[in-house]
Amino acid sequence: MLPDASLADIHIEGETIRAVVPAGGTGDVASPAGCPVTAIDCTGKMAMPGFVNMHTHAAMSLMRGVGEDVLFHRWLDRIWNVESKIDAEYVYWGTKAACVEMLRTGTTLFNDHYWYASAAHRAAVEMGIRPVESYVFLDRFDENAAAVQKERCIKAYEESEGWPGRGMFTVGIHSIYSVSEKTMLWAADFARRHGLRIHIHLSETKKEVDDCMAAHGMSPVEYLDSLGMLGPDLIAAHTLWLSEHDVELLGANHVNCVHNINSNLKLASGYRFLYNELKAAGANVCIGTDGCASSNNLDILEALKTAAMVQKAWRGDPSAMPLGDLVEMATVNGARALGYDTGVIAPGKDADILIIDTLNTFFLSPGSPLANLVYSAHSSCIESVICKGRFVMRDGIVPGEQEILSEARKTLSKII
Amino acid sequence: MLPDASLADIHIEGETIRAVVPAGGTGDVASPAGCPVTAIDCTGKMAMPGFVNMHTHAAMSLMRGVGEDVLFHRWLDRIWNVESKIDAEYVYWGTKAACVEMLRTGTTLFNDHYWYASAAHRAAVEMGIRPVESYVFLDRFDENAAAVQKERCIKAYEESEGWPGRGMFTVGIHSIYSVSEKTMLWAADFARRHGLRIHIHLSETKKEVDDCMAAHGMSPVEYLDSLGMLGPDLIAAHTLWLSEHDVELLGANHVNCVHNINSNLKLASGYRFLYNELKAAGANVCIGTDGCASSNNLDILEALKTAAMVQKAWRGDPSAMPLGDLVEMATVNGARALGYDTGVIAPGKDADILIIDTLNTFFLSPGSPLANLVYSAHSSCIESVICKGRFVMRDGIVPGEQEILSEARKTLSKII
Repeated sequence: MLPDASLADIHIEGETIRAVVPAGGTGDVASPAGCPVTAIDCTGKMAMPGFVNMHTHAAMSLMRGVGEDVLFHRWLDRIWNVESKIDAEYVYWGTKAACVEMLRTGTTLFNDHYWYASAAHRAAVEMGIRPVESYVFLDRFDENAAAVQKERCIKAYEESEGWPGRGMFTVGIHSIYSVSEKTMLWAADFARRHGLRIHIHLSETKKEVDDCMAAHGMSPVEYLDSLGMLGPDLIAAHTLWLSEHDVELLGANHVNCVHNINSNLKLASGYRFLYNELKAAGANVCIGTDGCASSNNLDILEALKTAAMVQKAWRGDPSAMPLGDLVEMATVNGARALGYDTGVIAPGKDADILIIDTLNTFFLSPGSPLANLVYSAHSSCIESVICKGRFVMRDGIVPGEQEILSEARKTLSKII
Repeated sequence: MLPDASLADIHIEGETIRAVVPAGGTGDVASPAGCPVTAIDCTGKMAMPGFVNMHTHAAMSLMRGVGEDVLFHRWLDRIWNVESKIDAEYVYWGTKAACVEMLRTGTTLFNDHYWYASAAHRAAVEMGIRPVESYVFLDRFDENAAAVQKERCIKAYEESEGWPGRGMFTVGIHSIYSVSEKTMLWAADFARRHGLRIHIHLSETKKEVDDCMAAHGMSPVEYLDSLGMLGPDLIAAHTLWLSEHDVELLGANHVNCVHNINSNLKLASGYRFLYNELKAAGANVCIGTDGCASSNNLDILEALKTAAMVQKAWRGDPSAMPLGDLVEMATVNGARALGYDTGVIAPGKDADILIIDTLNTFFLSPGSPLANLVYSAHSSCIESVICKGRFVMRDGIVPGEQEILSEARKTLSKII
């Protein structure tokens, strides 16, 4: 979406947007001598930046429905039971399937929090989407597990040094209720020594807050603050149960707070996400889908609509979380959190662009195309996806989709 | 969806389901001598009954985005301003466009609440979808307007006598805050003398309840009860702001209560719909999308997911509004409310059937196909729609769609 929904030509050279000029004119852009130029007619379509999914567990695309209609902590037991059986091959095909779904729903960059980072990275890169993978600590307060996980984290980091982008690896910490303080401190220190971001679940349920208060006399946010872990390099998923002081701390430390509305609703974790307050305090608020076992898909457009509607309803304010904010949450804010130069259609930015079909009933309206996209349309209107200058989905076709579905089904049948 | 998600063959004869038998066998069904038989291979697909949209204003498909992000009563002013300019042609093309969207999203029967009933009826019948149209009273407490509207109601009813189904016409009453008591009583009496259902907006906002308490010392539900208007022939849209006594009255009178979650959320009307309580009390709870100016689309599958998630979240109970209930709300409960013999795939029922493609990532799961459909998939997975034994959408194609979009755009440009 161009800021004013105007007609324009977008010039892409290699991986980068070179210019955005009024439609039909040549503007000041000429192709370098001898370079082939491909023009794509987008009459009846709109363009907008690709979405950034700021919190997901991609390979859980194979775990939809593992725990329907049960409470968070029972659900988590079921998930961990399945996860005790998975391997790199499972993660590879699960991530491949997730990438099919993310491309179909317009995501071009995602922040993953899962196991077997190399397998997930390889799956995503093959699909042409940009992954940020993590090594996730989950020691359950066991020192032996912690020692093993530290070694694995170092190894995963070393493997990631061969990856094309330096921002593609983060240190994951499952949560304060599943990782010891000592391990968290080690992980944060490791991340900061190597310039890596930290990705954690934080204040997701009331139980997490209550347990933390009982154990430490502090909220989870205050607890992380006391450990020196808050900062602009921290990506905190959920941040749903917050005190005023928590909001101040997250804001003052410019923490990246990822709202995962569908997951919070479906697991009955809660819904009063303090968007206005977090934004005003200085936090960088982004959006995520969480994994498919909880939410149950990877559709950022659906997440945006639900997030906006639920904010409007519980605040009793139909102007809450307006359209412009929604788009920022799903694009530039995510790019900023991860340190990627994307999320806007503007010269010099990475060419991550969605082409959206508007010749359908959802856009039949006197309203703005952006309102129609978010409030009315489905992600099925996303016709083509360009990631770093390359078509990764064109006219609704994701190369290799049927083979991926078939291999994912085989992998699934081995585990479940 | 067959009850047990089993493999089966569905035999349709004319407008009716004749038999449902184990897949591949001939069962006890033989085609009558000389009758041609068409077999459709649905490998990799699932079948479920067509959806019943129990509250919409179909022709408002052309009013998306007229009032984004404003409060209900300001929004209503904007709507009424546009509606002062519409005519039968607008309603005809608006309804045609709405039918395209309803068919694409799996609705085969809808309960409309709008003006120019004949034009709307004709549009829907041409599309092969089943409409229930209304004459809507909205006299704003003006006796002259009431007199004119009574005449028009009688005329609309007489016109409806030529329609193929006797349940295709209802008497609409906009609301207790826009129609005089005298007119409501006349309308209810007219409806009941002719065996017609009554379709009203009821207890949609807190303001409606507060104003009614101030004017009558009663809630809107109690007020309608005092007028003798509650009954199984009443279709009450929204019923969102209810006291315990309201719930008792709606239940004891077996009123059809239509939940319109997306509209309630987006207009910030509220979200604590008393599903469990209404169902337990004896009300027939159905689902609707409301009109596109509020919700902003006609997608029942989206409404089901949102309704379930929001119930789970505010109740803090992930088992609230479970899958089986969702399907009933969207199918048999609507059929019961309108007196149609549909909403289930079973012998003798009207053949209103959706064929859903499951060969995509949304159904890649160890969970149930039904969970995947509601929680994970989009309505874009609905591949074909059969309404009364006839394909009205086949392999994603709705006949005449582009012409309808083009005519709808022309009509829209005359009004806005």
